[in-house]
Amino acid sequence: MDIPLFSDSYFMKEALKEAQAAYEKDEIPVGAVIVCNNIIVARAHNLTEALNDVTAHAEMQAFTAAAGHIGGKFLSECTLYVTLEPCVMCAGAAYWTRIGRIVWGAADDKRGFTLSGERVLHPRTKTDSGVLKTECSSILNRFFRGKRKTDRDNIPPEPGMN
Amino acid sequence: MDIPLFSDSYFMKEALKEAQAAYEKDEIPVGAVIVCNNIIVARAHNLTEALNDVTAHAEMQAFTAAAGHIGGKFLSECTLYVTLEPCVMCAGAAYWTRIGRIVWGAADDKRGFTLSGERVLHPRTKTDSGVLKTECSSILNRFFRGKRKTDRDNIPPEPGMN
Repeated sequence: MDIPLFSDSYFMKEALKEAQAAYEKDEIPVGAVIVCNNIIVARAHNLTEALNDVTAHAEMQAFTAAAGHIGGKFLSECTLYVTLEPCVMCAGAAYWTRIGRIVWGAADDKRGFTLSGERVLHPRTKTDSGVLKTECSSILNRFFRGKRKTDRDNIPPEPGMN
Repeated sequence: MDIPLFSDSYFMKEALKEAQAAYEKDEIPVGAVIVCNNIIVARAHNLTEALNDVTAHAEMQAFTAAAGHIGGKFLSECTLYVTLEPCVMCAGAAYWTRIGRIVWGAADDKRGFTLSGERVLHPRTKTDSGVLKTECSSILNRFFRGKRKTDRDNIPPEPGMN
């Protein structure tokens, strides 16, 4: 399938490349890019294990990098593309950035910010969801299936079984 | 007034020293310390202006520093002391750290996480508030009064007034 240049799917594909980079580092595979005037100003992927830091979500790093690139704190003219629905921490950070728009792929039915009753985002932040959601979910499912398999393989045999 | 060693007030005084350090850098004066077995394992103050990064709240830096100090991602045995009630981003980060307890001084009536209808923190995280709240509010009020005065002083005179 051809993906039109600079479409939401086009940029989500770029976020998926970041998710793949996380996957290859044995990190929960979530990736993000921040786009301003069709230019990717920040790319990041989850690094919570490598950095031993639960705040090192793809979005958090992307916000910091984008502000550094732009030279201002606010991202009102930017769009965040992220493969998984942001959690409350990342949505709370997005509020402070005043980001113009957030587009995510897969929904997060456990920790997604939309589960919160209150509106966490800045009132001017627009949102869209479900862009390439099959690909975005698929890489996560693949990761967790692999983890469960590894865990099973590492279970010591029951006493008396060997 | 004597403050008992290792009491909540004692550690909030340490967080207030961090808030004062922020004040002296012309940052919104919020300070935090993270304590584990009566030892301060992280100290931080707001650096959003200096770092040009809206995610550089005192708590976020303290979480990262504490995890680095402890060598594990989770802060279940730790207490965060922070001079101002955490925002949704910081409370969302606290969830991921599974921190044992959060104690704050002044309430944040605009962006405090307790304004959110949903429970943002980890179910095992205990909270207390109002510790040294007068001192914690006072440094913020002094900062914003100073800002308003500076803004007034910088207003150019009305045409015809000079």
